[in-house]
Amino acid sequence: MKIKAIAFDAYGTLLDVFSVGTLAETMFPGKGAAIATTWRDKQIDYTRLRSMSDKFADFWQVTGDALDYACEAHGVVLSEGARRALMDAYEVLTAFPENRVALSRLQESGIPMAVLTNGSTGMIGAALRASGLDGFFDHVLSADSVQVFKTAPEVYQLGPEAFGCAVSEILFVSSNCWDICGATWFGYHTIWLNRYVQPMERLGVEPNARGRSLTDVADYVLG
Amino acid sequence: MKIKAIAFDAYGTLLDVFSVGTLAETMFPGKGAAIATTWRDKQIDYTRLRSMSDKFADFWQVTGDALDYACEAHGVVLSEGARRALMDAYEVLTAFPENRVALSRLQESGIPMAVLTNGSTGMIGAALRASGLDGFFDHVLSADSVQVFKTAPEVYQLGPEAFGCAVSEILFVSSNCWDICGATWFGYHTIWLNRYVQPMERLGVEPNARGRSLTDVADYVLG
Repeated sequence: MKIKAIAFDAYGTLLDVFSVGTLAETMFPGKGAAIATTWRDKQIDYTRLRSMSDKFADFWQVTGDALDYACEAHGVVLSEGARRALMDAYEVLTAFPENRVALSRLQESGIPMAVLTNGSTGMIGAALRASGLDGFFDHVLSADSVQVFKTAPEVYQLGPEAFGCAVSEILFVSSNCWDICGATWFGYHTIWLNRYVQPMERLGVEPNARGRSLTDVADYVLG
Repeated sequence: MKIKAIAFDAYGTLLDVFSVGTLAETMFPGKGAAIATTWRDKQIDYTRLRSMSDKFADFWQVTGDALDYACEAHGVVLSEGARRALMDAYEVLTAFPENRVALSRLQESGIPMAVLTNGSTGMIGAALRASGLDGFFDHVLSADSVQVFKTAPEVYQLGPEAFGCAVSEILFVSSNCWDICGATWFGYHTIWLNRYVQPMERLGVEPNARGRSLTDVADYVLG
Protein backbone atom coordinates (compact mmCIF):
# COMPACT_ATOMS: atom_id res chain seq x y z
CA MET A 1 0.00 0.00 0.00
CA LYS A 2 1.57 3.27 -1.15
CA ILE A 3 0.38 6.29 0.87
CA LYS A 4 0.36 9.38 -1.38
CA ALA A 5 -0.99 11.93 1.10
CA ILE A 6 -2.04 12.28 4.75
CA ALA A 7 -5.10 13.99 6.21
CA PHE A 8 -5.15 14.71 9.96
CA ASP A 9 -8.08 15.41 12.21
CA ALA A 10 -7.30 18.44 14.42
CA TYR A 11 -9.00 18.49 17.84
CA GLY A 12 -7.69 15.70 20.03
CA THR A 13 -5.42 14.42 17.26
CA LEU A 14 -3.02 17.31 16.59
CA LEU A 15 -4.23 19.67 19.30
CA ASP A 16 -4.56 18.77 22.97
CA VAL A 17 -7.97 19.88 24.22
CA PHE A 18 -7.13 18.79 27.80
CA SER A 19 -6.09 22.34 28.76
CA VAL A 20 -9.67 23.49 28.28
CA GLY A 21 -10.79 21.13 31.03
CA THR A 22 -8.01 22.36 33.30
CA LEU A 23 -9.16 25.95 32.84
CA ALA A 24 -12.76 24.91 33.54
CA GLU A 25 -11.57 23.27 36.78
CA THR A 26 -9.87 26.47 37.97
CA MET A 27 -13.12 28.35 37.35
CA PHE A 28 -15.49 25.73 38.79
CA PRO A 29 -13.53 23.69 41.36
CA GLY A 30 -14.78 20.13 41.62
CA LYS A 31 -16.94 20.45 38.52
CA GLY A 32 -14.40 21.26 35.81
CA ALA A 33 -13.92 17.71 34.57
CA ALA A 34 -17.66 17.03 34.42
CA ILE A 35 -18.32 20.32 32.63
CA ALA A 36 -15.53 19.66 30.14
CA THR A 37 -16.87 16.17 29.42
CA THR A 38 -20.44 17.36 28.87
CA TRP A 39 -19.13 20.30 26.81
CA ARG A 40 -17.25 17.95 24.47
CA ASP A 41 -20.13 15.43 24.27
CA LYS A 42 -22.66 18.13 23.41
CA GLN A 43 -20.29 19.75 20.92
CA ILE A 44 -20.16 16.45 19.03
CA ASP A 45 -23.91 15.81 19.45
CA TYR A 46 -24.73 19.20 17.99
CA THR A 47 -22.51 18.70 14.94
CA ARG A 48 -24.40 15.49 14.18
CA LEU A 49 -27.89 16.80 14.86
CA ARG A 50 -27.31 19.91 12.75
CA SER A 51 -25.83 17.79 9.96
CA MET A 52 -28.71 15.32 9.91
CA SER A 53 -31.30 18.10 9.73
CA ASP A 54 -29.33 20.33 7.33
CA LYS A 55 -29.11 23.11 9.94
CA PHE A 56 -25.43 23.95 9.78
CA ALA A 57 -23.93 26.51 12.13
CA ASP A 58 -20.15 26.76 12.30
CA PHE A 59 -18.06 24.98 14.93
CA TRP A 60 -17.44 28.17 16.91
CA GLN A 61 -21.19 28.62 17.34
CA VAL A 62 -21.71 24.93 18.16
CA THR A 63 -18.85 24.98 20.68
CA GLY A 64 -20.34 28.00 22.47
CA ASP A 65 -23.82 26.46 22.48
CA ALA A 66 -22.42 23.24 23.96
CA LEU A 67 -20.60 25.21 26.67
CA ASP A 68 -23.83 26.99 27.63
CA TYR A 69 -25.63 23.65 27.88
CA ALA A 70 -22.84 22.07 29.95
CA CYS A 71 -22.84 24.91 32.49
CA GLU A 72 -26.61 24.77 32.92
CA ALA A 73 -26.52 20.97 33.20
CA HIS A 74 -23.95 21.16 36.01
CA GLY A 75 -25.64 24.05 37.77
CA VAL A 76 -23.00 26.73 37.35
CA VAL A 77 -23.51 30.32 36.21
CA LEU A 78 -21.19 31.28 33.38
CA SER A 79 -20.19 34.95 33.45
CA GLU A 80 -19.47 36.70 30.18
CA GLY A 81 -15.78 36.88 31.07
CA ALA A 82 -15.52 33.21 31.95
CA ARG A 83 -17.33 32.27 28.77
CA ARG A 84 -14.92 34.33 26.69
CA ALA A 85 -11.90 32.83 28.46
CA LEU A 86 -13.10 29.24 27.90
CA MET A 87 -13.89 29.88 24.25
CA ASP A 88 -10.58 31.68 23.71
CA ALA A 89 -8.82 28.61 25.11
CA TYR A 90 -9.94 26.76 21.97
CA GLU A 91 -7.85 29.16 19.88
CA VAL A 92 -4.61 28.65 21.81
CA LEU A 93 -4.51 24.87 22.30
CA THR A 94 -1.12 23.23 22.63
CA ALA A 95 0.13 20.63 20.19
CA PHE A 96 0.89 17.15 21.53
CA PRO A 97 4.61 17.03 22.43
CA GLU A 98 5.67 14.55 19.75
CA ASN A 99 3.98 16.45 16.91
CA ARG A 100 6.80 18.66 15.64
CA VAL A 101 9.35 15.89 15.27
CA ALA A 102 6.85 13.50 13.66
CA LEU A 103 5.44 16.10 11.27
CA SER A 104 8.97 17.23 10.34
CA ARG A 105 9.96 13.66 9.44
CA LEU A 106 6.87 13.35 7.25
CA GLN A 107 7.37 16.77 5.65
CA GLU A 108 10.99 15.95 4.81
CA SER A 109 9.82 12.81 3.02
CA GLY A 110 7.88 15.06 0.64
CA ILE A 111 4.44 13.60 1.34
CA PRO A 112 1.67 16.23 1.12
CA MET A 113 -0.34 16.77 4.31
CA ALA A 114 -3.66 18.37 5.20
CA VAL A 115 -5.79 19.11 8.22
CA LEU A 116 -9.38 17.91 7.74
CA THR A 117 -11.53 19.25 10.54
CA ASN A 118 -14.98 20.12 11.79
CA GLY A 119 -13.42 23.32 13.14
CA SER A 120 -14.39 26.59 11.52
CA THR A 121 -11.84 28.26 9.25
CA GLY A 122 -11.18 30.97 11.83
CA MET A 123 -10.79 28.62 14.79
CA ILE A 124 -8.49 26.14 13.13
CA GLY A 125 -6.33 28.84 11.54
CA ALA A 126 -5.81 30.52 14.90
CA ALA A 127 -5.16 27.23 16.69
CA LEU A 128 -2.57 26.03 14.15
CA ARG A 129 -0.73 29.37 14.32
CA ALA A 130 -0.78 29.41 18.11
CA SER A 131 0.55 25.86 18.32
CA GLY A 132 3.24 26.48 15.69
CA LEU A 133 1.94 23.74 13.40
CA ASP A 134 0.71 25.88 10.52
CA GLY A 135 3.86 25.44 8.41
CA PHE A 136 3.39 21.69 7.99
CA PHE A 137 0.18 21.55 5.98
CA ASP A 138 -0.49 21.99 2.29
CA HIS A 139 -4.23 22.27 2.88
CA VAL A 140 -6.46 23.23 5.80
CA LEU A 141 -9.85 21.74 4.98
CA SER A 142 -12.80 22.86 7.11
CA ALA A 143 -16.39 21.65 7.33
CA ASP A 144 -17.24 25.32 6.71
CA SER A 145 -16.73 24.87 2.98
CA VAL A 146 -19.44 22.21 2.67
CA GLN A 147 -21.74 23.42 5.50
CA VAL A 148 -22.03 19.99 7.10
CA PHE A 149 -19.89 18.17 9.68
CA LYS A 150 -18.04 14.88 9.82
CA THR A 151 -18.98 12.11 9.50
CA ALA A 152 -20.98 13.33 6.48
CA PRO A 153 -19.39 12.13 3.21
CA GLU A 154 -19.20 15.69 1.86
CA VAL A 155 -16.54 16.54 4.44
CA TYR A 156 -14.40 13.47 3.81
CA GLN A 157 -14.64 14.18 0.07
CA LEU A 158 -12.58 17.34 0.64
CA GLY A 159 -9.45 15.17 1.03
CA PRO A 160 -9.31 13.49 -2.38
CA GLU A 161 -10.40 16.76 -4.01
CA ALA A 162 -7.57 18.73 -2.42
CA PHE A 163 -4.87 16.12 -3.04
CA GLY A 164 -6.08 15.06 -6.49
CA CYS A 165 -5.69 11.36 -5.78
CA ALA A 166 -7.91 8.41 -4.89
CA VAL A 167 -9.29 8.35 -1.34
CA SER A 168 -7.80 4.88 -0.82
CA GLU A 169 -4.32 6.39 -1.35
CA ILE A 170 -4.79 8.91 1.46
CA LEU A 171 -3.98 8.02 5.08
CA PHE A 172 -6.53 9.51 7.46
CA VAL A 173 -5.33 10.04 11.02
CA SER A 174 -7.59 10.64 14.01
CA SER A 175 -7.69 9.96 17.73
CA ASN A 176 -11.50 10.06 17.59
CA CYS A 177 -12.63 6.51 16.89
CA TRP A 178 -15.98 7.61 15.42
CA ASP A 179 -14.08 9.79 12.96
CA ILE A 180 -11.92 6.82 11.99
CA CYS A 181 -15.04 4.70 11.42
CA GLY A 182 -16.59 7.37 9.19
CA ALA A 183 -13.37 7.83 7.22
CA THR A 184 -12.90 4.08 6.79
CA TRP A 185 -16.48 3.71 5.55
CA PHE A 186 -15.78 6.55 3.12
CA GLY A 187 -12.77 4.72 1.71
CA TYR A 188 -9.68 6.24 3.37
CA HIS A 189 -6.74 4.18 4.53
CA THR A 190 -6.98 4.84 8.25
CA ILE A 191 -4.90 4.83 11.41
CA TRP A 192 -6.59 5.26 14.76
CA LEU A 193 -4.47 6.99 17.40
CA ASN A 194 -5.93 5.54 20.56
CA ARG A 195 -4.34 8.17 22.81
CA TYR A 196 -6.60 7.45 25.78
CA VAL A 197 -6.83 3.63 25.56
CA GLN A 198 -10.52 3.49 24.73
CA PRO A 199 -12.51 0.54 23.35
CA MET A 200 -13.00 0.26 19.62
CA GLU A 201 -16.42 1.52 18.54
CA ARG A 202 -18.80 -1.33 17.65
CA LEU A 203 -19.81 -0.22 14.17
CA GLY A 204 -18.76 -3.23 12.12
CA VAL A 205 -15.74 -1.43 10.66
CA GLU A 206 -12.04 -1.48 11.60
CA PRO A 207 -9.17 0.93 10.92
CA ASN A 208 -6.31 -0.29 8.74
CA ALA A 209 -3.83 0.43 11.52
CA ARG A 210 -3.62 1.59 15.13
CA GLY A 211 -1.15 3.68 17.06
CA ARG A 212 -0.84 5.83 20.16
CA SER A 213 0.80 9.04 18.91
CA LEU A 214 1.94 10.90 15.80
CA THR A 215 5.28 9.09 16.08
CA ASP A 216 3.44 5.91 15.15
CA VAL A 217 2.04 7.66 12.07
CA ALA A 218 5.53 8.67 10.89
CA ASP A 219 6.82 5.13 11.54
CA TYR A 220 3.85 3.62 9.68
CA VAL A 221 4.24 5.81 6.60
CA LEU A 222 8.05 5.95 6.42
CA GLY A 223 8.50 2.32 7.40
CA MET B 1 -53.94 25.46 16.38
CA LYS B 2 -56.01 22.36 15.60
CA ILE B 3 -54.14 19.11 16.25
CA LYS B 4 -55.35 16.44 13.83
CA ALA B 5 -53.07 13.57 14.89
CA ILE B 6 -50.40 12.67 17.45
CA ALA B 7 -47.08 10.87 16.93
CA PHE B 8 -45.25 9.56 20.00
CA ASP B 9 -41.62 8.63 20.40
CA ALA B 10 -41.35 5.26 22.19
CA TYR B 11 -38.20 4.71 24.28
CA GLY B 12 -38.16 7.06 27.26
CA THR B 13 -41.43 8.67 26.18
CA LEU B 14 -43.98 5.83 26.30
CA LEU B 15 -41.71 3.12 27.67
CA ASP B 16 -39.59 3.43 30.78
CA VAL B 17 -36.06 2.28 30.04
CA PHE B 18 -35.01 2.73 33.69
CA SER B 19 -35.60 -0.95 34.45
CA VAL B 20 -32.76 -1.88 32.12
CA GLY B 21 -30.34 0.05 34.33
CA THR B 22 -31.72 -1.66 37.42
CA LEU B 23 -31.09 -5.07 35.88
CA ALA B 24 -27.56 -4.02 34.90
CA GLU B 25 -26.97 -2.97 38.52
CA THR B 26 -28.00 -6.40 39.85
CA MET B 27 -25.54 -8.01 37.42
CA PHE B 28 -22.68 -5.56 37.94
CA PRO B 29 -23.06 -4.04 41.42
CA GLY B 30 -21.69 -0.51 41.62
CA LYS B 31 -21.31 -0.25 37.87
CA GLY B 32 -24.89 -0.71 36.63
CA ALA B 33 -25.76 2.98 36.39
CA ALA B 34 -22.54 3.84 34.55
CA ILE B 35 -22.98 0.90 32.16
CA ALA B 36 -26.60 1.85 31.47
CA THR B 37 -25.62 5.46 30.76
CA THR B 38 -22.82 4.52 28.37
CA TRP B 39 -25.10 1.92 26.77
CA ARG B 40 -27.77 4.52 26.05
CA ASP B 41 -25.25 7.15 24.89
CA LYS B 42 -23.57 4.74 22.48
CA GLN B 43 -26.92 3.45 21.24
CA ILE B 44 -27.81 7.01 20.21
CA ASP B 45 -24.30 7.73 18.85
CA TYR B 46 -24.45 4.65 16.65
CA THR B 47 -27.85 5.55 15.18
CA ARG B 48 -26.44 8.91 14.14
CA LEU B 49 -23.11 7.66 12.81
CA ARG B 50 -24.79 4.91 10.80
CA SER B 51 -27.34 7.40 9.46
CA MET B 52 -24.75 9.97 8.41
CA SER B 53 -22.69 7.37 6.55
CA ASP B 54 -25.66 5.48 5.09
CA LYS B 55 -24.71 2.29 6.98
CA PHE B 56 -28.04 1.34 8.50
CA ALA B 57 -28.31 -1.62 10.83
CA ASP B 58 -31.53 -2.06 12.77
CA PHE B 59 -32.02 -0.83 16.33
CA TRP B 60 -31.71 -4.31 17.80
CA GLN B 61 -28.25 -4.68 16.29
CA VAL B 62 -27.26 -1.15 17.32
CA THR B 63 -28.52 -1.74 20.87
CA GLY B 64 -26.48 -4.92 21.19
CA ASP B 65 -23.36 -3.26 19.76
CA ALA B 66 -23.74 -0.40 22.23
CA LEU B 67 -24.08 -2.86 25.13
CA ASP B 68 -20.88 -4.62 24.10
CA TYR B 69 -19.04 -1.28 23.99
CA ALA B 70 -20.40 -0.20 27.37
CA CYS B 71 -19.29 -3.41 29.07
CA GLU B 72 -15.79 -3.18 27.66
CA ALA B 73 -15.57 0.53 28.55
CA HIS B 74 -16.45 -0.23 32.19
CA GLY B 75 -14.24 -3.29 32.42
CA VAL B 76 -16.86 -5.99 32.89
CA VAL B 77 -17.11 -9.29 31.08
CA LEU B 78 -20.55 -9.90 29.62
CA SER B 79 -21.56 -13.56 29.58
CA GLU B 80 -23.84 -14.81 26.85
CA GLY B 81 -26.66 -15.29 29.37
CA ALA B 82 -26.27 -11.82 30.85
CA ARG B 83 -26.22 -10.28 27.39
CA ARG B 84 -29.42 -12.08 26.44
CA ALA B 85 -31.12 -11.02 29.67
CA LEU B 86 -30.20 -7.36 29.20
CA MET B 87 -31.31 -7.34 25.57
CA ASP B 88 -34.53 -9.17 26.42
CA ALA B 89 -35.27 -6.45 28.97
CA TYR B 90 -35.74 -4.07 26.03
CA GLU B 91 -38.67 -6.17 24.87
CA VAL B 92 -40.52 -6.13 28.20
CA LEU B 93 -40.22 -2.50 29.27
CA THR B 94 -42.94 -1.07 31.47
CA ALA B 95 -45.11 1.85 30.40
CA PHE B 96 -44.98 5.02 32.51
CA PRO B 97 -47.77 4.84 35.11
CA GLU B 98 -49.89 7.68 33.72
CA ASN B 99 -49.89 6.36 30.15
CA ARG B 100 -53.05 4.24 30.07
CA VAL B 101 -55.33 6.94 31.44
CA ALA B 102 -53.84 9.67 29.24
CA LEU B 103 -53.90 7.53 26.08
CA SER B 104 -57.48 6.42 26.82
CA ARG B 105 -58.61 10.04 27.10
CA LEU B 106 -56.98 10.84 23.77
CA GLN B 107 -58.35 7.70 22.09
CA GLU B 108 -61.87 8.49 23.28
CA SER B 109 -61.59 11.93 21.67
CA GLY B 110 -61.15 10.17 18.33
CA ILE B 111 -57.76 11.65 17.47
CA PRO B 112 -55.58 9.21 15.51
CA MET B 113 -52.30 8.24 17.17
CA ALA B 114 -49.02 6.67 16.06
CA VAL B 115 -45.71 5.54 17.48
CA LEU B 116 -42.76 6.94 15.53
CA THR B 117 -39.59 5.24 16.68
CA ASN B 118 -36.00 4.34 15.92
CA GLY B 119 -36.84 0.91 17.32
CA SER B 120 -36.93 -2.01 14.94
CA THR B 121 -40.31 -3.40 13.96
CA GLY B 122 -39.75 -6.50 16.06
CA MET B 123 -38.56 -4.69 19.17
CA ILE B 124 -41.28 -2.08 19.25
CA GLY B 125 -44.03 -4.58 18.52
CA ALA B 126 -42.92 -6.80 21.38
CA ALA B 127 -42.48 -3.86 23.77
CA LEU B 128 -45.93 -2.40 23.02
CA ARG B 129 -47.58 -5.79 23.52
CA ALA B 130 -45.69 -6.44 26.76
CA SER B 131 -46.61 -3.03 28.17
CA GLY B 132 -50.25 -3.33 27.10
CA LEU B 133 -50.13 -0.20 24.95
CA ASP B 134 -50.56 -1.79 21.54
CA GLY B 135 -54.31 -1.15 21.33
CA PHE B 136 -53.93 2.64 21.36
CA PHE B 137 -52.12 3.24 18.10
CA ASP B 138 -53.35 3.44 14.52
CA HIS B 139 -49.81 3.21 13.17
CA VAL B 140 -46.49 1.88 14.43
CA LEU B 141 -43.87 3.63 12.32
CA SER B 142 -40.31 2.30 12.51
CA ALA B 143 -37.01 3.62 11.15
CA ASP B 144 -36.74 0.14 9.61
CA SER B 145 -38.98 1.17 6.73
CA VAL B 146 -36.65 3.95 5.58
CA GLN B 147 -33.33 2.39 6.70
CA VAL B 148 -32.14 5.52 8.48
CA PHE B 149 -32.67 6.82 12.04
CA LYS B 150 -34.09 9.95 13.60
CA THR B 151 -33.28 12.79 13.31
CA ALA B 152 -33.07 12.15 9.54
CA PRO B 153 -36.00 13.80 7.71
CA GLU B 154 -36.96 10.50 6.06
CA VAL B 155 -38.08 9.13 9.43
CA TYR B 156 -40.12 12.16 10.43
CA GLN B 157 -41.76 12.09 6.99
CA LEU B 158 -43.42 8.78 7.98
CA GLY B 159 -45.86 10.73 10.19
CA PRO B 160 -47.58 12.93 7.59
CA GLU B 161 -47.54 10.03 5.14
CA ALA B 162 -49.33 7.71 7.57
CA PHE B 163 -51.89 10.26 8.77
CA GLY B 164 -52.45 11.92 5.38
CA CYS B 165 -52.30 15.44 6.79
CA ALA B 166 -49.80 18.29 6.93
CA VAL B 167 -46.87 17.83 9.33
CA SER B 168 -47.76 21.10 11.06
CA GLU B 169 -51.12 19.56 12.04
CA ILE B 170 -49.44 16.64 13.83
CA LEU B 171 -48.37 16.89 17.46
CA PHE B 172 -45.04 15.15 18.03
CA VAL B 173 -44.37 13.99 21.59
CA SER B 174 -40.96 13.02 22.95
CA SER B 175 -39.04 13.09 26.20
CA ASN B 176 -35.79 13.18 24.21
CA CYS B 177 -34.99 16.82 23.65
CA TRP B 178 -32.83 16.14 20.57
CA ASP B 179 -35.79 14.30 19.03
CA ILE B 180 -38.02 17.30 19.72
CA CYS B 181 -35.48 19.61 18.07
CA GLY B 182 -35.32 17.41 14.97
CA ALA B 183 -39.11 17.14 14.78
CA THR B 184 -39.58 20.89 15.23
CA TRP B 185 -37.05 21.58 12.49
CA PHE B 186 -38.96 19.15 10.29
CA GLY B 187 -42.20 21.07 10.82
CA TYR B 188 -44.14 19.17 13.51
CA HIS B 189 -46.07 20.89 16.26
CA THR B 190 -44.06 19.64 19.25
CA ILE B 191 -44.34 19.06 22.97
CA TRP B 192 -41.25 18.17 24.96
CA LEU B 193 -41.89 15.94 27.97
CA ASN B 194 -39.02 16.92 30.21
CA ARG B 195 -39.41 13.91 32.48
CA TYR B 196 -35.95 14.21 34.05
CA VAL B 197 -35.70 18.02 34.37
CA GLN B 198 -32.90 18.45 31.89
CA PRO B 199 -31.71 21.67 30.23
CA MET B 200 -33.08 22.57 26.80
CA GLU B 201 -30.68 21.65 24.02
CA ARG B 202 -28.92 24.71 22.57
CA LEU B 203 -29.78 24.23 18.92
CA GLY B 204 -31.57 27.48 18.15
CA VAL B 205 -34.98 25.81 18.06
CA GLU B 206 -37.74 25.56 20.68
CA PRO B 207 -40.69 23.17 21.10
CA ASN B 208 -44.20 24.60 20.82
CA ALA B 209 -45.03 23.35 24.29
CA ARG B 210 -43.51 21.60 27.30
CA GLY B 211 -44.80 19.12 29.84
CA ARG B 212 -43.66 16.48 32.28
CA SER B 213 -45.83 13.46 31.50
CA LEU B 214 -48.42 12.07 29.10
CA THR B 215 -51.12 13.66 31.26
CA ASP B 216 -49.83 17.04 30.07
CA VAL B 217 -50.19 15.87 26.47
CA ALA B 218 -53.84 14.92 26.99
CA ASP B 219 -54.49 18.25 28.74
CA TYR B 220 -52.74 20.16 25.95
CA VAL B 221 -54.69 18.48 23.15
CA LEU B 222 -58.09 18.24 24.82
CA GLY B 223 -57.87 21.67 26.45
